[in-house]
Amino acid sequence: MRPSQRTANQLRPYTLTRQYTRHAEGSVLVECGDTKVICTASVIEGVPRFLKGKGQGWLTAEYGMLPRATHTRSDRESSRGKQGGRTLEIQRLIGRALRSAVSLEQLGEFTLTIDCDVIQADGGTRCASITGACVALYDAVQYMRKNNLVKGNPFRHWVSAISVGIFQGEPVLDLDYPEDSGCETDMNIVMTETGGFIEVQGTAEGEAFSTEQLTSLLELGRQGCRELFDIQRQSVGA
Amino acid sequence: MRPSQRTANQLRPYTLTRQYTRHAEGSVLVECGDTKVICTASVIEGVPRFLKGKGQGWLTAEYGMLPRATHTRSDRESSRGKQGGRTLEIQRLIGRALRSAVSLEQLGEFTLTIDCDVIQADGGTRCASITGACVALYDAVQYMRKNNLVKGNPFRHWVSAISVGIFQGEPVLDLDYPEDSGCETDMNIVMTETGGFIEVQGTAEGEAFSTEQLTSLLELGRQGCRELFDIQRQSVGA
Amino acid sequence: MRPSQRTANQLRPYTLTRQYTRHAEGSVLVECGDTKVICTASVIEGVPRFLKGKGQGWLTAEYGMLPRATHTRSDRESSRGKQGGRTLEIQRLIGRALRSAVSLEQLGEFTLTIDCDVIQADGGTRCASITGACVALYDAVQYMRKNNLVKGNPFRHWVSAISVGIFQGEPVLDLDYPEDSGCETDMNIVMTETGGFIEVQGTAEGEAFSTEQLTSLLELGRQGCRELFDIQRQSVGA
Amino acid sequence: MRPSQRTANQLRPYTLTRQYTRHAEGSVLVECGDTKVICTASVIEGVPRFLKGKGQGWLTAEYGMLPRATHTRSDRESSRGKQGGRTLEIQRLIGRALRSAVSLEQLGEFTLTIDCDVIQADGGTRCASITGACVALYDAVQYMRKNNLVKGNPFRHWVSAISVGIFQGEPVLDLDYPEDSGCETDMNIVMTETGGFIEVQGTAEGEAFSTEQLTSLLELGRQGCRELFDIQRQSVGA
Amino acid sequence: MRPSQRTANQLRPYTLTRQYTRHAEGSVLVECGDTKVICTASVIEGVPRFLKGKGQGWLTAEYGMLPRATHTRSDRESSRGKQGGRTLEIQRLIGRALRSAVSLEQLGEFTLTIDCDVIQADGGTRCASITGACVALYDAVQYMRKNNLVKGNPFRHWVSAISVGIFQGEPVLDLDYPEDSGCETDMNIVMTETGGFIEVQGTAEGEAFSTEQLTSLLELGRQGCRELFDIQRQSVGA
Amino acid sequence: MRPSQRTANQLRPYTLTRQYTRHAEGSVLVECGDTKVICTASVIEGVPRFLKGKGQGWLTAEYGMLPRATHTRSDRESSRGKQGGRTLEIQRLIGRALRSAVSLEQLGEFTLTIDCDVIQADGGTRCASITGACVALYDAVQYMRKNNLVKGNPFRHWVSAISVGIFQGEPVLDLDYPEDSGCETDMNIVMTETGGFIEVQGTAEGEAFSTEQLTSLLELGRQGCRELFDIQRQSVGA
Repeated sequence: MRPSQRTANQLRPYTLTRQYTRHAEGSVLVECGDTKVICTASVIEGVPRFLKGKGQGWLTAEYGMLPRATHTRSDRESSRGKQGGRTLEIQRLIGRALRSAVSLEQLGEFTLTIDCDVIQADGGTRCASITGACVALYDAVQYMRKNNLVKGNPFRHWVSAISVGIFQGEPVLDLDYPEDSGCETDMNIVMTETGGFIEVQGTAEGEAFSTEQLTSLLELGRQGCRELFDIQRQSVGA
Repeated sequence: MRPSQRTANQLRPYTLTRQYTRHAEGSVLVECGDTKVICTASVIEGVPRFLKGKGQGWLTAEYGMLPRATHTRSDRESSRGKQGGRTLEIQRLIGRALRSAVSLEQLGEFTLTIDCDVIQADGGTRCASITGACVALYDAVQYMRKNNLVKGNPFRHWVSAISVGIFQGEPVLDLDYPEDSGCETDMNIVMTETGGFIEVQGTAEGEAFSTEQLTSLLELGRQGCRELFDIQRQSVGA
Repeated sequence: MRPSQRTANQLRPYTLTRQYTRHAEGSVLVECGDTKVICTASVIEGVPRFLKGKGQGWLTAEYGMLPRATHTRSDRESSRGKQGGRTLEIQRLIGRALRSAVSLEQLGEFTLTIDCDVIQADGGTRCASITGACVALYDAVQYMRKNNLVKGNPFRHWVSAISVGIFQGEPVLDLDYPEDSGCETDMNIVMTETGGFIEVQGTAEGEAFSTEQLTSLLELGRQGCRELFDIQRQSVGA
Repeated sequence: MRPSQRTANQLRPYTLTRQYTRHAEGSVLVECGDTKVICTASVIEGVPRFLKGKGQGWLTAEYGMLPRATHTRSDRESSRGKQGGRTLEIQRLIGRALRSAVSLEQLGEFTLTIDCDVIQADGGTRCASITGACVALYDAVQYMRKNNLVKGNPFRHWVSAISVGIFQGEPVLDLDYPEDSGCETDMNIVMTETGGFIEVQGTAEGEAFSTEQLTSLLELGRQGCRELFDIQRQSVGA
Repeated sequence: MRPSQRTANQLRPYTLTRQYTRHAEGSVLVECGDTKVICTASVIEGVPRFLKGKGQGWLTAEYGMLPRATHTRSDRESSRGKQGGRTLEIQRLIGRALRSAVSLEQLGEFTLTIDCDVIQADGGTRCASITGACVALYDAVQYMRKNNLVKGNPFRHWVSAISVGIFQGEPVLDLDYPEDSGCETDMNIVMTETGGFIEVQGTAEGEAFSTEQLTSLLELGRQGCRELFDIQRQSVGA
Repeated sequence: MRPSQRTANQLRPYTLTRQYTRHAEGSVLVECGDTKVICTASVIEGVPRFLKGKGQGWLTAEYGMLPRATHTRSDRESSRGKQGGRTLEIQRLIGRALRSAVSLEQLGEFTLTIDCDVIQADGGTRCASITGACVALYDAVQYMRKNNLVKGNPFRHWVSAISVGIFQGEPVLDLDYPEDSGCETDMNIVMTETGGFIEVQGTAEGEAFSTEQLTSLLELGRQGCRELFDIQRQSVGA
């Protein structure tokens, strides 16, 4: 029995609100249960130095959390003077995941900068960030197309992410905070709409997990991502 | 004529949404036109070292801005490794302003930590932060009272803040971004419900301002703050 | 009765020593009672990136304090690895104040860098910095004129600054440390020789202040600045 | 055909040299082909603040790379003033992996600090670090037992790690640098001697990978880890 | 012929002004030609952690330079966020030199913090800092004796420092900036009043120097230090 | 009697292993007793900004120590966020010493970057670094000559370094850690093959040292360096 009374393969209520803020080319509030993340995609001219003159674009991501997004207040990273290891790990993951959603070659010398800022955390912030930011990214690419900044359509396919885990011996989908902090194994799965894996990150918290457990977690994750692709497509009316 | 068609002494639409996020003891979304700030007040046991053992409390404030809260994306301060001068100046102002709203002696050895995070900026973010955070502060103090963490009522009176300025030769209330970036003089006024000034900060952007202009700006500010006190009181049903 | 036995509108002994150090284009020791600040103005070719190619100049300011300028030794900011909020706030103020003293358009692509280093502190260091640095700035501009680095005279008018405050219920001019640390309201006023305000920053330390108090503080500040303009003019023999 | 002429499931020559340096309680040079890492385990009295007084121990890991361990010299992180995201990600992984190899409860209030410093890199440095550091950890625990710092044996089981990937369409074991930089999918697998997974991290570099590919990669990884457990056991004469 | 017309063994005019600033227990302006350094010695209760409870004291030193102490303005270290290698090297030297001037055992659990801040530089700032700070240190120890903070006299003997070098083939005493920047070999010598060496640091700038040159430099340095001991003693009326 | 049973003028066993790692143009493991340092020399196109366009080269050095190179683990400087004063002082010394071994004019616009990383410390790491890195530098210059990156031979002569000190009243050569931590005077001597001094740095740890002691230390150092030149020449078969 899950603390939230959900069935093992049941997602939390999931909403994507587009044009959530005014200035960004793409801006989405993603809500996955009580987890809420503002995702923006900014279109910026130019590319990092290592790509200059190659005619291709770049996508980079940053992740942050408001100090009181969590049960107890955490220090503001700008005040501590550096981003922690968890933050850097998550933003590297978001960047890798979303770079697979666009054709960097088709972008031209533009950088798409993704910002994911958690305003309320209840587990699964990195997966919600990827899923929500992919919609912001879609909108930013549409902005570029409308303004003739790009030829063709550099958006390749939807990318979504969901967490799965072994909670009290059972594989479950979309862990909330009480499950996440008590689970034996925690796995984040990033997939493309076309059914392939972009990233699989499973960690045993305590006891090791078996091949069978891994297999059922992957199956649950696949189901979850399929639902998320529908939600993403509906959000843009596609 | 103001770009927003407002009259000289007209505030922008102003809303205060309490309990905006779940974890903080006080949590308010303040919207002042297109300026939107999430303000939280956290109740934390203990006080900074310089106050230990004195039996009194403390209030401190931090301010941040999401990278794409503005027209063009600004660098994330956690990634740059330090808070800029503007950020530090604003959070020092918010702290001074709100320390006058509570009796630190009555608080006991607790720290109230205020976080103001701008999710969309259109001028006046520091004033909106003070006005909104004062409501979060009110709620945090009520939380302490309900949970018997404090005796009596350490909340002394409402504090609100508004900007005024000389725009195209005329004193106007509550500058939005187009006015703020084009005005000759910019002034932030922080007042208490009892009619006194907590802070007056006026800056000439270019030509100096006269005593007469200063007098009319102060009068406009007083009017604006009076309206804000009503909005604050209504938001808590008082 | 003031601790220093001064009357309410009496400045401390005030001296400006030009050419205090050898290398800077302008170099002034300002002494305001026991407050002593070395102010230098350096003429540096080039402008910050955001101004490149616009044909205009820039003025920037930095402020520091020797560790033992104060009663108890404070940490060296270079050793702590960052400038504190108070330092950043003060140097932003000095920069804004002195940018109004020169015509940046007339400067051409030069940067005037102002350094104010407090070697002994007894209250009023930011105001003494502005008043003293304006003389160093004057000298640096004369250096530029003599060396044909600039056409015409980019120095527009004198700028001076003084603190005022409510001490034991009375408005007083030019607070020294014992007054500053015990006053109810503290205000810094920056004016131009032509009688206008550049900056007015008043802060209630504790109880709020009234419009009447504000009015009498402004009047005191105006008097103080008038005296300082005379001292500045005399220092350069003008 | 692999650039190194190895068969798909062939490890590179793998050696573990114990007591490689003199001062650490455990010190191992791990060589996996041309990848060479010095791994030390230090026994330090006391635990981090969040564990104080709980009677249990802690294990933490740090990872570094000599500037010229790589083809082109990379900046020294101490000189840049911070550890990069990759470094932090790897040392978090090493820490999680090795915490599963010891019973923190049995350790008592000691911290085992693992340092992995790459002196020559040719792909697979994080996996070599885990496998080598586990032997250093074993030796440090033996040191504690011999010196009566601990009761019983807190070392639970061997933990090893290996990379697998899809290179030119084929699943291969233990990627060297030419394979790593050219592969389609890269996966790091951390296992316990008892056959369970501690960590599975697979990333598509470009095209997504399928469930079938994932399955064969996991099988290859299992084989590789089994060989490594033998090498670990032989190194300590067990 | 030296640029300054001095003879080879001639010091620059050298003055020590005690009680230069008001707050420090010892405060000296040292002027060595155009080199001017403010040296303060602060008496601070307590010692660093590594000495706690051992009943002895400590002495530490910090060194800084105003940005425009030099011909061209140098960056403020607090603004750059760290002290440079030259600064750290100098302050370590000052600390070592002056620790030999006091009996740390006799000091009790106090820390003497030496600050040397260069307000004008013309070569020889580190040597002037040591010589001047030793007088500030003397005064701080007298302050401790008068206030019964210490038993006996922890001041052991005078310590002074002077630079010597090979300029245009000739050994010369007390290099000013034009000599320092053009010399072949530069050596700093720190001695005690009792005739021993505390520190000898000689560096060839270009060609190596011979044993004979080293011998004559040491002899010149000894002469210079003897003169400085007289100046130190006279400054305190001893 | 020395703790190591060596005679006063006896070096520890000294070995230089060339081509110790694969990627650097020059790579040497230097072992001086139990002190072990990996020295690499990297050939990098381009020069620092202050030399651009002058047609000459540059040499710079960095020094580091693995956290557990020492008896007790020391913090990783990359994790603390800055290099300590000792590190900066040592790498400045290594750089100055080795710049005298090459003709920067002949190098052309290349930078030779020296990295010295201590993997095991037992006293004398800075001297071993200089002596070992000079061989790595030699190899890097030969690499440049073979690849026609340079005309002629910019390697001028061997540079070596050794420590000497007064231990229990006697001058001794090549201090190991027990001697170094207990000696009265410690001196590092850097010489060229041609018999001149590049750097002499002597420090009294406690009592001052006399001219006679200094003279005998210099003589011991000269002997030590002569032996090291032979070892350097033999290592390259010259």
